[in-house]
Amino acid sequence: MKTYLECIPCFIKQALNVCEHIDADEKTREKIVRRVLKRLSSIDLDKKPPEFAFYVYNTIEKVSPNIDFYKKIKQKDNLAALEALAKTKEIVEKAKDPLKAAAKAAIAGNIMDFAHHNNYNILETVSRSVDEKLSIDHYAKLLAELKQASRIAYLADNAGEIVLDRLFIEEIRKITQAEVNFFVRNKPIVNDATIEDAEQAGINKVANLKINKIRTTFPFTSNPSFVKFLKDQDVIISKGQANYECLSELKANIFFLLITKCPVITDHIKVKKGTFIIKNNLL
Amino acid sequence: MKTYLECIPCFIKQALNVCEHIDADEKTREKIVRRVLKRLSSIDLDKKPPEFAFYVYNTIEKVSPNIDFYKKIKQKDNLAALEALAKTKEIVEKAKDPLKAAAKAAIAGNIMDFAHHNNYNILETVSRSVDEKLSIDHYAKLLAELKQASRIAYLADNAGEIVLDRLFIEEIRKITQAEVNFFVRNKPIVNDATIEDAEQAGINKVANLKINKIRTTFPFTSNPSFVKFLKDQDVIISKGQANYECLSELKANIFFLLITKCPVITDHIKVKKGTFIIKNNLL
Repeated sequence: MKTYLECIPCFIKQALNVCEHIDADEKTREKIVRRVLKRLSSIDLDKKPPEFAFYVYNTIEKVSPNIDFYKKIKQKDNLAALEALAKTKEIVEKAKDPLKAAAKAAIAGNIMDFAHHNNYNILETVSRSVDEKLSIDHYAKLLAELKQASRIAYLADNAGEIVLDRLFIEEIRKITQAEVNFFVRNKPIVNDATIEDAEQAGINKVANLKINKIRTTFPFTSNPSFVKFLKDQDVIISKGQANYECLSELKANIFFLLITKCPVITDHIKVKKGTFIIKNNLL
Repeated sequence: MKTYLECIPCFIKQALNVCEHIDADEKTREKIVRRVLKRLSSIDLDKKPPEFAFYVYNTIEKVSPNIDFYKKIKQKDNLAALEALAKTKEIVEKAKDPLKAAAKAAIAGNIMDFAHHNNYNILETVSRSVDEKLSIDHYAKLLAELKQASRIAYLADNAGEIVLDRLFIEEIRKITQAEVNFFVRNKPIVNDATIEDAEQAGINKVANLKINKIRTTFPFTSNPSFVKFLKDQDVIISKGQANYECLSELKANIFFLLITKCPVITDHIKVKKGTFIIKNNLL
């Protein structure tokens, strides 16, 4: 997916958000925002939105190096999701189709996206997820292919959210013997999960933990070996908007699981804002 | 009021809004947004927000000259407000304090602000305005001073809204013999009222119509003769956020009547978003 002019106010808001979280003084905030604006004035719109978000974070890192901007938030989100886990398990186990309920709970976890807002109640979102109608529903295909799969790649999105991904993977493993490789970012960006978050969430107990190079080789599609790897997978589960933005054009068997959170994405997918989707990329 | 970094995403959204209204093609949109971003990267934050909004409109005018971007919207808003007038009059006349009810209806008219959103129902807003509690309420002082006044200046904001200003002025004239001078912009910017809008709203029947130079000598406070004029007034009624942004530091007897519509303004005034205020500048 290309970058739209409508994404630009959002990039600036992200820069301002991070400034708030690193308690930047006024002079530093101004310096960061001016740099971002100058860079935006010559932005290549053919590139994917996460590439520019990456630039925003790089700009901030130059001013405040070696800071994991969202470390505290991520830990808080992991804990909140872990606290919600027992209740979520109960919801999933009681459901008519536990795998589908777990998929929906994992989508509900996608509410924990600090790039878009910072006020979410994970248990409330999970609780209503069972009755949530998917605005794009390719679950039947996902189920059929998971049963046949021997290689599954799971591309994670945010800290906190990954606790519910773990629950979904537990349900997946009940219907398949496939190898599950779970990919997180190799460096912190926004509140995206890194290896530490995945370990805190206990993903290593249910899947192989892998690191993708999303912060250094952007986007996925510009990394030929990763593209080859993805094409070799039987099923790819991709969580969240940034992964969608990077992979929406890739001809691989990707299932995008996410909540639609911005007008650019909703226009692109042609659904309403705030809806849950399971969308297969080959249909 | 200075410009805050948080105003920047809003300036870009305004540029995109106008592009939509002039049906700009993709190349023109891109050109406008890039220019605005470049200019924003060296913005003087000590200037007032409307000065930069003015720059945004100037940039667009260079690409699409001689266009009153919001002409159609303004005419539609004037008509919608004129249609709501009879019902509003009824609400005002039935009220315990018709002048206060008319002031609140005039504030309700401030919902018609295209710089912030484009989806408003004027009659619904006016209807609930009677019961709306003002989050800052200097009405008692306004009433006392209107009664004593011999010179009143009324600084208008948006098309549509001015129809309800007219009703408020009619009520004001019932308690005072003062001269009322009603100021509109000399050139179109966003959906701010111009002389044509004021005539359509019938302001000329209840007040002297005057033009201020807000589009050419920005802000009010940089125009010494206008500042002198304002200081000589007994009461100044100032509608809307942009006028507040220009005049909040001026030591003159200004009553700001507006709906708080953006986080920067609400932080500055220290009230919640979406509230009605009548705020005197000398208290």
